[in-house]
Amino acid sequence: MSTPRPIILLDPYPRTIASLFNAQDKARLEKLGQVIWHDGSPASDAHIEQYLPDTIALLGQTSMPRERLERAPNLRLIANVESNFLPNVDYAECHRRGIHVISTGPVFAQSVAEMALGYALAAARRIPQADAAIRRGDETMYGAADNYDSFLLHGKTLGLLGCGNLGRALLPLLRPFSRDLIVHDPWLHDSVLREMQVEPVSFDALFARSKVLFVLTATTTENQGFIGAAQFAAMQPGAVFVLASRAGVVNFDAMLDAAARGHIRVATDVFPIEPIPADQRARQTPNTVLGAHRAGNVPEIWTQMGEMVTDDLELILRGLPPQRCQRATLETVSRIRSMPAQAATESKSGPAIK
Amino acid sequence: MSTPRPIILLDPYPRTIASLFNAQDKARLEKLGQVIWHDGSPASDAHIEQYLPDTIALLGQTSMPRERLERAPNLRLIANVESNFLPNVDYAECHRRGIHVISTGPVFAQSVAEMALGYALAAARRIPQADAAIRRGDETMYGAADNYDSFLLHGKTLGLLGCGNLGRALLPLLRPFSRDLIVHDPWLHDSVLREMQVEPVSFDALFARSKVLFVLTATTTENQGFIGAAQFAAMQPGAVFVLASRAGVVNFDAMLDAAARGHIRVATDVFPIEPIPADQRARQTPNTVLGAHRAGNVPEIWTQMGEMVTDDLELILRGLPPQRCQRATLETVSRIRSMPAQAATESKSGPAIK
Amino acid sequence: MSTPRPIILLDPYPRTIASLFNAQDKARLEKLGQVIWHDGSPASDAHIEQYLPDTIALLGQTSMPRERLERAPNLRLIANVESNFLPNVDYAECHRRGIHVISTGPVFAQSVAEMALGYALAAARRIPQADAAIRRGDETMYGAADNYDSFLLHGKTLGLLGCGNLGRALLPLLRPFSRDLIVHDPWLHDSVLREMQVEPVSFDALFARSKVLFVLTATTTENQGFIGAAQFAAMQPGAVFVLASRAGVVNFDAMLDAAARGHIRVATDVFPIEPIPADQRARQTPNTVLGAHRAGNVPEIWTQMGEMVTDDLELILRGLPPQRCQRATLETVSRIRSMPAQAATESKSGPAIK
Amino acid sequence: MSTPRPIILLDPYPRTIASLFNAQDKARLEKLGQVIWHDGSPASDAHIEQYLPDTIALLGQTSMPRERLERAPNLRLIANVESNFLPNVDYAECHRRGIHVISTGPVFAQSVAEMALGYALAAARRIPQADAAIRRGDETMYGAADNYDSFLLHGKTLGLLGCGNLGRALLPLLRPFSRDLIVHDPWLHDSVLREMQVEPVSFDALFARSKVLFVLTATTTENQGFIGAAQFAAMQPGAVFVLASRAGVVNFDAMLDAAARGHIRVATDVFPIEPIPADQRARQTPNTVLGAHRAGNVPEIWTQMGEMVTDDLELILRGLPPQRCQRATLETVSRIRSMPAQAATESKSGPAIK
Repeated sequence: MSTPRPIILLDPYPRTIASLFNAQDKARLEKLGQVIWHDGSPASDAHIEQYLPDTIALLGQTSMPRERLERAPNLRLIANVESNFLPNVDYAECHRRGIHVISTGPVFAQSVAEMALGYALAAARRIPQADAAIRRGDETMYGAADNYDSFLLHGKTLGLLGCGNLGRALLPLLRPFSRDLIVHDPWLHDSVLREMQVEPVSFDALFARSKVLFVLTATTTENQGFIGAAQFAAMQPGAVFVLASRAGVVNFDAMLDAAARGHIRVATDVFPIEPIPADQRARQTPNTVLGAHRAGNVPEIWTQMGEMVTDDLELILRGLPPQRCQRATLETVSRIRSMPAQAATESKSGPAIK
Repeated sequence: MSTPRPIILLDPYPRTIASLFNAQDKARLEKLGQVIWHDGSPASDAHIEQYLPDTIALLGQTSMPRERLERAPNLRLIANVESNFLPNVDYAECHRRGIHVISTGPVFAQSVAEMALGYALAAARRIPQADAAIRRGDETMYGAADNYDSFLLHGKTLGLLGCGNLGRALLPLLRPFSRDLIVHDPWLHDSVLREMQVEPVSFDALFARSKVLFVLTATTTENQGFIGAAQFAAMQPGAVFVLASRAGVVNFDAMLDAAARGHIRVATDVFPIEPIPADQRARQTPNTVLGAHRAGNVPEIWTQMGEMVTDDLELILRGLPPQRCQRATLETVSRIRSMPAQAATESKSGPAIK
Repeated sequence: MSTPRPIILLDPYPRTIASLFNAQDKARLEKLGQVIWHDGSPASDAHIEQYLPDTIALLGQTSMPRERLERAPNLRLIANVESNFLPNVDYAECHRRGIHVISTGPVFAQSVAEMALGYALAAARRIPQADAAIRRGDETMYGAADNYDSFLLHGKTLGLLGCGNLGRALLPLLRPFSRDLIVHDPWLHDSVLREMQVEPVSFDALFARSKVLFVLTATTTENQGFIGAAQFAAMQPGAVFVLASRAGVVNFDAMLDAAARGHIRVATDVFPIEPIPADQRARQTPNTVLGAHRAGNVPEIWTQMGEMVTDDLELILRGLPPQRCQRATLETVSRIRSMPAQAATESKSGPAIK
Repeated sequence: MSTPRPIILLDPYPRTIASLFNAQDKARLEKLGQVIWHDGSPASDAHIEQYLPDTIALLGQTSMPRERLERAPNLRLIANVESNFLPNVDYAECHRRGIHVISTGPVFAQSVAEMALGYALAAARRIPQADAAIRRGDETMYGAADNYDSFLLHGKTLGLLGCGNLGRALLPLLRPFSRDLIVHDPWLHDSVLREMQVEPVSFDALFARSKVLFVLTATTTENQGFIGAAQFAAMQPGAVFVLASRAGVVNFDAMLDAAARGHIRVATDVFPIEPIPADQRARQTPNTVLGAHRAGNVPEIWTQMGEMVTDDLELILRGLPPQRCQRATLETVSRIRSMPAQAATESKSGPAIK
């Protein structure tokens, strides 16, 4: 049985409709089709199946294997509102069918970029330590003594590991500090990086040269734990290491060792196990700035996700390609390491390539 | 008794020659005249007087009243290396005699600007509080709850009170975040601010409109304590107030009251009495980020002072005006409130005008 | 019969291998496969067919209908080096097969953008007219009289019709002149334009508000001749109209009428018939700056095409998507109006969307 | 006889009050004092003398030798509205008396900078020649042939001789084209140039390295004719030489020789004798773009002069230093070569230093 209007199917769990859509975007969405609002739990198979034949757009993380795609002949858009592309969609079949698969991942890039800069300044100037010292009543007055190891970002070599959405949001914030911006990203051609007015460098050079090194790459099948003791040892004494994307890419203990012995300073927003176990040693490690996975998820951007998805659906129904969300790239979507289930709520970064 | 070469007289106390001059700049200075190196204590009157007749440049905070200027007929430069112009120089007489009076104040601008942005991000995102929570073991995981009052700088109205050296260093760092930059500076013409691509606003509008408000003005004879309870009440709930220059311009208790009741968040680098008394209530005030006068005095910039002074002396001896240091402006030098003696070591900001 | 190595097939006519590839890029290309070099004429069907089974990449404008694609099971890249996507490729079938179809069109964007700004300044300041006057010996001295209708770009409203490759290259050049940048592009969502820090406006507002209006859009099936007498009449007296992409989008006579009566000034790089007929009335129309399709085709960028194609083939063979060339967008590739055969040599602009 | 209000004395000839002041600025000026409006001819000595005792501000080019300054005890401002500081003022005595001497020279900087870029693009792309060819009916179609010697500014080495008001206005316009900006300015310290993010280079290196060289320096007692055959020979073949400030700094014949033999391309806005004699050979020299002193004097900026002077007088009467106009610098004001009388109407550039 067919409905009179094309259907827009919502299955945003664990996000909620109220957090994603303001009144204006809800109204825009309803102009585009018959919206089947649902949230609070993952939609049941029966719920999904009944609407598939007339569905033109699916907003959520619903499983969409090949057989389901075959039962959705009018489908033109799958919009993941959790940021990372999950392995429960047959991306190759979507591609063949001309179904756009997009994610709202880029929406977190500005938030993470601002936090990454905040962490870098906090570490370079020891802002949390100085605050804690005054509260304890044992501050040292006047920079001469207290600032002995503080440094400016001005004119320093600032390095990025990964230059996808996060890097592209961070670079503009860094440019007023320094023109000496170096990047390693194996998924981008050197010439592309040069066009972005950064210097492409090798993995080793990135660690050796950066005064502040920002790790912005997603965990992939290729880079798990690939930053270890050798990399931290290669960093300059007093350099700052900002881990802003995923804990999976570093050997966390090696990182904390380097901070503990005062070789580098570390700021990290992520941890190998989250929520953070009580015995995570970082809690006692000096020369660190710690945050509990707070970089991406700032309230004001939740409704931007709804806005972006609605914008892109408007474009698709006008016969144009999506322009605001990130499009699944066949070549790389399979390399992004699937999130464990509990991590699905914490997604913040798009993959390390555009 | 006259020396065969023009004399360059050093009296940098409380700064030291070793902190101000690297080997290269010492060598450059010695090419420009006979350098009388002295530090460790203020030079004695006798020491100064014996060299006055042949002195072409005086680097330090030596008292130079009119009668001394008369005994220094070859003097062409007085370079304060403490940043603030002290009241122990007859500026009007220097002007009449064509003696350049300069200060190295601008050297601190980049350092303070970076710290001001660091404080703003730390307060907007609660970076020190989140770090302390993890160390205490009571962090909240995942932004949804913990970030309830976090906000992005992106697109927000960012306000500056004062747009002298500090403001000019901060504005480039803020531009990638927002184009909505508003400034109140009674010492600058509105048209000058508009040329700087900021919007000149009234004192009241600055408080009403700013999501983050940076106080960058020196204390003058006109502005002591001029930011009080009325101003804080006029700020938006949840706005951030960054006090980066001088405590003298605010009613400190009113500021802490506003933070304590959660109306605004405050980051302050300065305190009414420094060193900070043990009973300063800010130590227990929530919604604050505290620093003990650390914004300006970062080691890497000390030798920049020596470099700047040497550059300007080179220019003057080539028949050109100084270009790197701040020049004393007759109109405003007398309005900058003199520092109490103990504060002379903590100077960091130039006056609020160029 | 199969070759031992994957084949890279060249068919770049009317471009030549010598103009496209420098020695370094030729060497890079030969590392990627067995290159079948051919130019000077379109490759014959027999030539193409013999290599199809082992071809991984085709660089040129060869016809590739569905049946040929079926005979090229290893094909992964079709790279048009003429800039515009021609109708002789089955784009939908390429998409289904995961064959990347790209064009070197973006390479011309910087060249056209610089020329467009040159035309705008030439028209706003009457540079060619003033030069001609001196050569004739009847110049007016000193701006007062001669500059009566000259204007600065500084602070003016600058408008773009179309914001694809050309617009994105032009915007950075315009930003130092003015922050009042307005754009109409029906293929881009308003929110995308706002993210680019330009103001999206309606077609009518673009003409009414622009002091300088840059036409940067390709001719599509939808926009032929859509700029006519009404639009020119709606422009401000003394405004400048720069036609930098395609003559097909304007009513050329209406444009020249508006210039002839002094209502606007026009700079055009393109003409309805090219080469320009001897009796083209623009040759005698005052208030115009004329160029014979010169904006894009500057020698130094020819080898950039070879470099970009080689870069993208390197990426594809590393399992990554192309990043430097423009990718054919199914939604829009069919709307770009096919070039007549003789125009194939003059292509310079990519389509008006990204 | 004294007037009841402080007097503002106008003597703007050869400029006119109508061209300098719009209604709003006239009204602002009248709020500041009793304005003695006069123009059309230089004010007579008698006219000037009668008002001197009560005059606080003099707007114009009136002679102000020491004895007159003594008769003007209340004078606080002399504002030259012709741009160049003339030798008819005793600048040292003004300095001693704390009288601000300013000029509206900077107002022309944006206009000259835009024109300089226009000339550079016109020369690099042969815009006037291509326009003339179409009008003659002998254009070459399509870039391949016609663009054989065209080049992009993108990524090229762009050089400035002089980095005063003009250079500071031009640099922002050049930055989107290239980061390789080199400057020679003997009046600025290398460290100042580096702070401006340009590379300071020697006079010889400037000529050897620049693909486009902008001459922006005023004629001084030190630099007359200092650019000659040796400098032009040292330029790269096909480089562009833009003469945007003063003809006096070049050997004009050597410049035209270099253009005539095709070694370089030249764009010049100025000529050794102006108005340009009929037999000036530049009229027939190929590889040149010619303008008859048109770069500075665009109508919309005339009233900016009145606005700037009024702004600065407002500031002075509020006890602040002038901020918008250029202040006479004792060290350099005497080096700027006096203009011959007939040139007084053509002033456009401030001196080469700030």
